[in-house]
Amino acid sequence: MLSQLVGGSPRRDRSLSPLSAKDRNGQNPDRRGRTYSGDAHRNQQGRSRAESAKKEQRKTPVKIIPLGGLNEIGKNFTVIECSNDMFIIDCGLAFPDSEMLGVDIVIPDFTYVEQNKEKLRGIVITHGHEDHIGALPYFLKKINVPVYGTRLTLGLLEGKLKEHGLLGSVKLIPAEPRKTIRLGCMAVEPIRVNHSIPDAVGFAIHTPAGVLVHTGDFKVDYTPIEGSVIDLARFAELGSRGVLALMSDSTNSERAGYTMSERKVGESFEKLFAQAEGKRLIIATFASNIHRVQQIVNICERTGRKVAVSGRSMVNVISKSVELGYLKIPDGLLVDIEMVGRYPSEEICIVTTGSQGEAMSALTRMARGEHRNVSISPNDFIIISANPIPGNEKFVTKVVNSLLAQGANVVYESMYEVHVSGHACQEEQKLILSLTKPKYFIPVHGEYKHLMKHAKTAMSVGIPKENIIITSIGNVIETDGCDMRITGTVPAGNVLVDGLGVGDVGSIVLRDRKKLAEDGLIICFATVDRRAGEILSGPDIVSRGFVYVRESEELMDTARRLATDALQECLDRDMHEWNAIKNHVKDVLSDYIYQTTQRSPMILPVMMEI
Amino acid sequence: MLSQLVGGSPRRDRSLSPLSAKDRNGQNPDRRGRTYSGDAHRNQQGRSRAESAKKEQRKTPVKIIPLGGLNEIGKNFTVIECSNDMFIIDCGLAFPDSEMLGVDIVIPDFTYVEQNKEKLRGIVITHGHEDHIGALPYFLKKINVPVYGTRLTLGLLEGKLKEHGLLGSVKLIPAEPRKTIRLGCMAVEPIRVNHSIPDAVGFAIHTPAGVLVHTGDFKVDYTPIEGSVIDLARFAELGSRGVLALMSDSTNSERAGYTMSERKVGESFEKLFAQAEGKRLIIATFASNIHRVQQIVNICERTGRKVAVSGRSMVNVISKSVELGYLKIPDGLLVDIEMVGRYPSEEICIVTTGSQGEAMSALTRMARGEHRNVSISPNDFIIISANPIPGNEKFVTKVVNSLLAQGANVVYESMYEVHVSGHACQEEQKLILSLTKPKYFIPVHGEYKHLMKHAKTAMSVGIPKENIIITSIGNVIETDGCDMRITGTVPAGNVLVDGLGVGDVGSIVLRDRKKLAEDGLIICFATVDRRAGEILSGPDIVSRGFVYVRESEELMDTARRLATDALQECLDRDMHEWNAIKNHVKDVLSDYIYQTTQRSPMILPVMMEI
Repeated sequence: MLSQLVGGSPRRDRSLSPLSAKDRNGQNPDRRGRTYSGDAHRNQQGRSRAESAKKEQRKTPVKIIPLGGLNEIGKNFTVIECSNDMFIIDCGLAFPDSEMLGVDIVIPDFTYVEQNKEKLRGIVITHGHEDHIGALPYFLKKINVPVYGTRLTLGLLEGKLKEHGLLGSVKLIPAEPRKTIRLGCMAVEPIRVNHSIPDAVGFAIHTPAGVLVHTGDFKVDYTPIEGSVIDLARFAELGSRGVLALMSDSTNSERAGYTMSERKVGESFEKLFAQAEGKRLIIATFASNIHRVQQIVNICERTGRKVAVSGRSMVNVISKSVELGYLKIPDGLLVDIEMVGRYPSEEICIVTTGSQGEAMSALTRMARGEHRNVSISPNDFIIISANPIPGNEKFVTKVVNSLLAQGANVVYESMYEVHVSGHACQEEQKLILSLTKPKYFIPVHGEYKHLMKHAKTAMSVGIPKENIIITSIGNVIETDGCDMRITGTVPAGNVLVDGLGVGDVGSIVLRDRKKLAEDGLIICFATVDRRAGEILSGPDIVSRGFVYVRESEELMDTARRLATDALQECLDRDMHEWNAIKNHVKDVLSDYIYQTTQRSPMILPVMMEI
Repeated sequence: MLSQLVGGSPRRDRSLSPLSAKDRNGQNPDRRGRTYSGDAHRNQQGRSRAESAKKEQRKTPVKIIPLGGLNEIGKNFTVIECSNDMFIIDCGLAFPDSEMLGVDIVIPDFTYVEQNKEKLRGIVITHGHEDHIGALPYFLKKINVPVYGTRLTLGLLEGKLKEHGLLGSVKLIPAEPRKTIRLGCMAVEPIRVNHSIPDAVGFAIHTPAGVLVHTGDFKVDYTPIEGSVIDLARFAELGSRGVLALMSDSTNSERAGYTMSERKVGESFEKLFAQAEGKRLIIATFASNIHRVQQIVNICERTGRKVAVSGRSMVNVISKSVELGYLKIPDGLLVDIEMVGRYPSEEICIVTTGSQGEAMSALTRMARGEHRNVSISPNDFIIISANPIPGNEKFVTKVVNSLLAQGANVVYESMYEVHVSGHACQEEQKLILSLTKPKYFIPVHGEYKHLMKHAKTAMSVGIPKENIIITSIGNVIETDGCDMRITGTVPAGNVLVDGLGVGDVGSIVLRDRKKLAEDGLIICFATVDRRAGEILSGPDIVSRGFVYVRESEELMDTARRLATDALQECLDRDMHEWNAIKNHVKDVLSDYIYQTTQRSPMILPVMMEI
């Protein structure tokens, strides 16, 4: 059925078995260490020969349009379009960078999809992390389409939709690995992958032009805590039948080797629990890392500790995961955080948010002595089971310093193996490349440096440079099965969300915020009778964020005098243009302030006329 | 002579030679690997016995007062005080953290020294880095005292004093290792150390209470590029005669093992120069790392490349170092950055600032295409020879991405060994602890977590826990040779420098800047005839950094209407208190804005009366 649908794959003519006794070049497959790198290359040669031999047939073209996730971390959003059908893979948010003052979150620009919404058949989600589902409420408020995801993913999404008052009005359709979802002329097949959240999938996308594979975020964990190992067999099978293009996770492409199994963290915990005997344990980690929470729960059960949970997102994710059966907590093990005081310290383990030193998180509140139920003491053994995400290092250090200063034992960063990544390192990336043997490769999910490294890794296993596309959001990648290239652009970029405002904070607002943040503000106000050429009231001067006024009276007095002179001069010269008058006053003040302080506050002259 | 001055050291009774055939416990000194850890402990025991036997004599007490550098990185400043004499070790600045919006630099609070300036005999400087000399101009403007430093340190300082118009009015006195400086009843002896800048020293401070040793920033480099190896013999000699207290650099105390020699970087450069053949080389590093520049110069000379220098601080430090003989550049090797275009790419190596992704640095300008003389192309091979300082990771990544996107080859972070630290790791810290065998230990230069780790390292080599003082700036550590404890506090903290203002930006100004940065500002202004109960003009509303006004006309109109109603209501009710009227208008606006946008801009009602 699928084969009819997709019209055959580009390499249907090749042998299905990559391990047939000898390959075309007669190389012995026993040398498997080299086979990977040699294999893809030879396939390439084989294909070229086949191509020239019988000229590949051009098929209905398919477009891949990334609107997020390239040259950035987060905001993952990819449009797949073919004929009159279109669907989206993931709809994530990104966190603002330090330039985006006051911005809460960043979401993709949906313009292109809005302009083509009649084509849209649905959204398929790889997993329940914010950078993959966080923009969905904003999208669904604009275009209500069915959302497909695995059970846990939809479970987590439900909470999010509820907050936005969307629950009930959106069609959430459960997806399962290896069960194909038909979306117009295309079909999407979820493939089980390992990641730092349960129930993650990648996708095989069967299109008329050929099969596209998107890994989603993935790693290879041969000993996962829950669920099964990444479905390598299915990736291999697709590869044998022919994959037109692979889009693969580049997050860790700078790291050599393999990402450790989540189980490694459990082993470290075992040792640390022993060290912490007699003390209260506090473990901070990512709320969504259910596997890690499961390991903590298991050791607590064995070592006779109750588990208390602190932090809103941690409580939410844990309840949902227990409800859906992804997290198993024995009856009576959980105690309310309000009740921890009633148990001896050595019988308690608190699982908490705040592993990134976030200002309002539970661990940060504990460190500051502002947590309602937990006061830190030398009797606490604290584990920060996460690495700081770039940009958060100083926040984490601040929390660590403060916890240490209160006498607690703190295990942080790379002191022990208390964290493993959820993303594939180079060897795992090679494994997927080698199994899927794609004709074209598009590294996704990463900054430019990550995409570049991933491309190099791909070349090292034989993907020709000219078949690798490193691109930016908004570029339209088009393929008809025979070739693949960038054929156009569509609107793409950052839409800033600040409070309830979506997109109403732009570059001018940010520029003003930056100026205000750096040197503050001076308002000069006066009421004027312009006809009589008379100042009726003022000018007076108010400043905020500029200087501590009580200690700068002289400065302020001089500024006031200069503003008065400047304004009177304008009136005496019978100036008529309000803007010219304002600008003159502003220039005089600005010059004086800069000369005296070498600062450039925003200066706002406010003139009223009667 | 010195012995008269300092009145004997606390352990004068002990054998001077640490290598006498057998020590008191009869342990064979051949087991030197263990001797270190055992030794300090035994000394302790020996001392305890001696103490109880003949009761140590209490001597004139000396105070150690850190006013910077503890629980923070930077702003190093330590007061040493004895009887009527006082001097300062280092006078550095710190860089503002992300909360200190608009602040340029942070300097120590000098209050205590100002209050006791008649005691002040001078300032001794360990080396020429900003966190050790950067606050000197601000200090010297308040109190003009002699400054002692090695030649390069004073050379770099001169440039800084010139900028502040202080050159000529300040007495700069050259210091040399092993040549004692007398400062009242105390004497300070510089001791050569290795660091990431030439001519760095630590100090032995001979006081009536005993000898204090301060390492300054240090590492152990057995194969330094210039100058000699750290003067381990002198540390050992002091240790044998008895060191009362050691203050030692804690920056790298979380890192096990040894810091690599600077020469390691040269080896990496050799390989990378070979890889870069045919391309233009651009190497970014810290301006003050003259050793690194020397290595680049040497390889350039050998490989036939000219060296061009970009970035103001790089140009300054290089000229000064050449002038003073710390950097040797063969004639004709240097070319002006304006002239690089005249040479073939493969014959040029540009040495530049910007290794931290600083916004205005030369490398960042190159990355942005804003450098006057250098345009990046695929023909560039760029080496970032530095690790990102915590907090700068994202800036560096941005620069790397941009350089890569322009096709350049970029070597960054830990890809190759292109950077080594200037600070001692744990094994080097142990070496100094073991050589100096201090009675008391005060870890300095580091955040709380670093001081804690250093304390643990000290305990591992036998310093008893009760003889280690981890403290904060402003605490007075006092010792009379027999014991050491905290006996009081003095004013200490951060003084913020913003433009020409020193200390005029405080918590209120920063709080306002933060609020303005997050949600911007709304000004509501009106002119009122309060007696007639009439609004003469306005209210009108102006916003900045809040919302893009053209797209929010409705919001602004409603706000204006609400403000008018609120003001009129006050006038109708005959309210007399200006503040009450303003607050009412502010509350009405604030509620409306928050409900509509969930943002909290600063709201400033400006009312004028006629």
